[in-house]
Amino acid sequence: MTVLAPVLDELAAGLPADAVLTDPASTEAYRHDEANFCPSGTPLAVVRPTATEQVQHVLRVASAHRVPVVPQGSRTGLSGAANAVDGGIVLSLSRMDQIVEINPVDQVAVVEPGVLNAVLSRAVLEQGLYYPPDPSSWELSTIGGNLATNAGGLCCVKYGVTTDFVRALEVVMASGEILRTGRRTAKGVAGYDLTRLIVGSEGTLGVITQATLGLKPAPEAALTMAAAFTTAADALTAVTKIMAAGLQPSMCEFLDGVTVRAIQDYRDMGLPTGVGALLLTQSDRGPRAAADVEAMGVICGELGALDVAVASDATESAMLMEARRIVHFAVEKLGSTLIDDVAVPRSRLVDLLDGITVIAQEHGVTVCCPGHVGDGNMHPTVIFDRGDPAAVERAQKAFDAIMRLGLALGGTITGEHGVGVLKRDWLATELGELSTRLHRDIKKAFDPLGILNPGKVLAAG
Amino acid sequence: MTVLAPVLDELAAGLPADAVLTDPASTEAYRHDEANFCPSGTPLAVVRPTATEQVQHVLRVASAHRVPVVPQGSRTGLSGAANAVDGGIVLSLSRMDQIVEINPVDQVAVVEPGVLNAVLSRAVLEQGLYYPPDPSSWELSTIGGNLATNAGGLCCVKYGVTTDFVRALEVVMASGEILRTGRRTAKGVAGYDLTRLIVGSEGTLGVITQATLGLKPAPEAALTMAAAFTTAADALTAVTKIMAAGLQPSMCEFLDGVTVRAIQDYRDMGLPTGVGALLLTQSDRGPRAAADVEAMGVICGELGALDVAVASDATESAMLMEARRIVHFAVEKLGSTLIDDVAVPRSRLVDLLDGITVIAQEHGVTVCCPGHVGDGNMHPTVIFDRGDPAAVERAQKAFDAIMRLGLALGGTITGEHGVGVLKRDWLATELGELSTRLHRDIKKAFDPLGILNPGKVLAAG
Repeated sequence: MTVLAPVLDELAAGLPADAVLTDPASTEAYRHDEANFCPSGTPLAVVRPTATEQVQHVLRVASAHRVPVVPQGSRTGLSGAANAVDGGIVLSLSRMDQIVEINPVDQVAVVEPGVLNAVLSRAVLEQGLYYPPDPSSWELSTIGGNLATNAGGLCCVKYGVTTDFVRALEVVMASGEILRTGRRTAKGVAGYDLTRLIVGSEGTLGVITQATLGLKPAPEAALTMAAAFTTAADALTAVTKIMAAGLQPSMCEFLDGVTVRAIQDYRDMGLPTGVGALLLTQSDRGPRAAADVEAMGVICGELGALDVAVASDATESAMLMEARRIVHFAVEKLGSTLIDDVAVPRSRLVDLLDGITVIAQEHGVTVCCPGHVGDGNMHPTVIFDRGDPAAVERAQKAFDAIMRLGLALGGTITGEHGVGVLKRDWLATELGELSTRLHRDIKKAFDPLGILNPGKVLAAG
Repeated sequence: MTVLAPVLDELAAGLPADAVLTDPASTEAYRHDEANFCPSGTPLAVVRPTATEQVQHVLRVASAHRVPVVPQGSRTGLSGAANAVDGGIVLSLSRMDQIVEINPVDQVAVVEPGVLNAVLSRAVLEQGLYYPPDPSSWELSTIGGNLATNAGGLCCVKYGVTTDFVRALEVVMASGEILRTGRRTAKGVAGYDLTRLIVGSEGTLGVITQATLGLKPAPEAALTMAAAFTTAADALTAVTKIMAAGLQPSMCEFLDGVTVRAIQDYRDMGLPTGVGALLLTQSDRGPRAAADVEAMGVICGELGALDVAVASDATESAMLMEARRIVHFAVEKLGSTLIDDVAVPRSRLVDLLDGITVIAQEHGVTVCCPGHVGDGNMHPTVIFDRGDPAAVERAQKAFDAIMRLGLALGGTITGEHGVGVLKRDWLATELGELSTRLHRDIKKAFDPLGILNPGKVLAAG
């Protein structure tokens, strides 16, 4: 500590009295996000700034002393991207939680990174506007975390992901300098797209301290269809037909039989158990919505759906949505989990699920499969007993095999959860040598000393 | 030529016999795009490859001999980005014009860069699909050029610009290596977003040889509203009210009085002359469209529109669209033109137009103002007599003053036309020192020898 004391003293000199935590009892909660099997270190300090100048101060001190800095939101991530590193500074942005502006003419919101997704979503809705990205963690996760991971969600199938709604960023660089990227305007092509380079870079290129987000007019209330199938393959075939028919679902979610039962065991949501799969779709196309969900239902019926139901009111729709949102908690009751996040072209979904079934058998593990299937994004979740080393090993092998399968089907190792430390080695496999080299060169241009979230996304050094 | 002969020999060795043009009479047409006042050099050769391996060959030879390479599409650009440089190779991608695949389930098209925008748009429409980006040049411009400039168009106000529809790229690097970015899937967050870094980089980072583009279901036929106003300010105020009302126009175009008269003089399109401005809007929301355009009309009426008309059939709608599309040609009849491309937050449109009026008066020039005003993107076009040096100087000063105004209003120097050589110095002003430095570092990571489109976007060296 004697060596580190000057760092702490310098940090404290430019921050409010309660901004720096060093007591292990206080810093413990900031050590890691929700991912399993991701190493997390013991930080030198947790710093909680309330203004951009304070973030600049932290980065200047960190640069001067070559101390790693891990930017952090609510730690709801699933890849360890926000995990502390030994002797580093955890830079929690949660206290920078102001909505600076909501403008209905320009259809933009200007926010600090600590604003919760749900808080922003509700605030813009009050003005008839819509911020679509809606990760399942939306009640807990921050916009800063959403930006850092380019978060997806249920709405993506129609409206796109976080990066599609980012217009401009204020970013504190590793040096403490302020970079402004993008612009408030709807269009703009002046220079390289640094905004979208930073979105999804998981805190490795800079610290986002303000974002200008594009908004849409609030959609009309959605109608929901639920269809139960004997086999998962039929449900996934229905998805390809629904999309090819141009029906534009505003949600298109898949729950395999194990997941449906897990939800129902966790909380009685009135779901049919003993089925092979449940497909939940929505349409928010106003006067078209009723015909849309009916057409979706007809497609499901033709594929042998056991039961097709259209939610008759908003309460019933909300209940089905809630069932989807609690998947993470319900599945965790089944045992320890390794949550995968592969995305494949929609046309390969059946191949993906068939392959996962084989992988589960080969490795003797249970894999449940909820997924944003309208986007081809599946969350195969390996369930295992953490106390049994052999089971842990089998789970990790199955997890890896699923990513290998996703890549073989023309997909990606991560549709929305990000790389963090969990998939760092797999990223190199997906990118290949040339792209990895470019990633390192870009990282070096932004962060020559390598102090920003080292060891995340790219291996250190 | 003796020094250069080895380069030509090496080029020819890996290319079809008719791929290399060196005769000045043949290469002349490839020297520049449609921008005025942009220097263009005399190329060593124009090379027209038909396959990716040939592009690799060209880049390898160019790297070995440090010869500049200017990637080029149809030369419809308006910033000189495709202009030849002295002694360099013009790499025309027009012969790589295959549509490799259109997939209705995955809703993607895979294309070579030389495919014309209109050819792709019609091909996907035959399968019930929609590729939205529609620059006014869509009948002539290539997808490769659209990608290089991140082209916009009329549809952007609802559907977004080129970058919003790009999923994956095959790129030949300056070294001749092949870089694959992105993925075919709808979602994916594995690594930094190199795809969108390359889109809009105007051929300075690599040569796009294949693109995987996202598609949407074909929209329903749009209804069109046209409203004539006494003053431009009223028309622009109508735009802000239409957008704030959440009416989601699929087109929202503004023509000032000078432009309306120029179109009508160029071709009789039945437009009302003697007005201050004409606003053209569309809605493609199916059953909502009629109510949408009526509501837009009511807003215009309340703001004192002289005349509000809803196109009663598709032919009439197409005619109004055509009127918008021929603006470029109509305005060129008025004299030599300097076409600006500022975009401002929609709420500042009235301020922009007021400022432009002042600038026109101060510099004694005529400025007509067509614009994609739904996006805040205006094309103030300075009309002048090229034969009069004093008039040329006044025009250039007015052109610069308009960009300065755009920046002062929180906007950008270019909404969709790009930087090229025309706005290279202004780009540094918009970006500032830090961002410019990062641009240079990124350029260097991709193109260490600086052979790719040197002097475009960033000043050489």
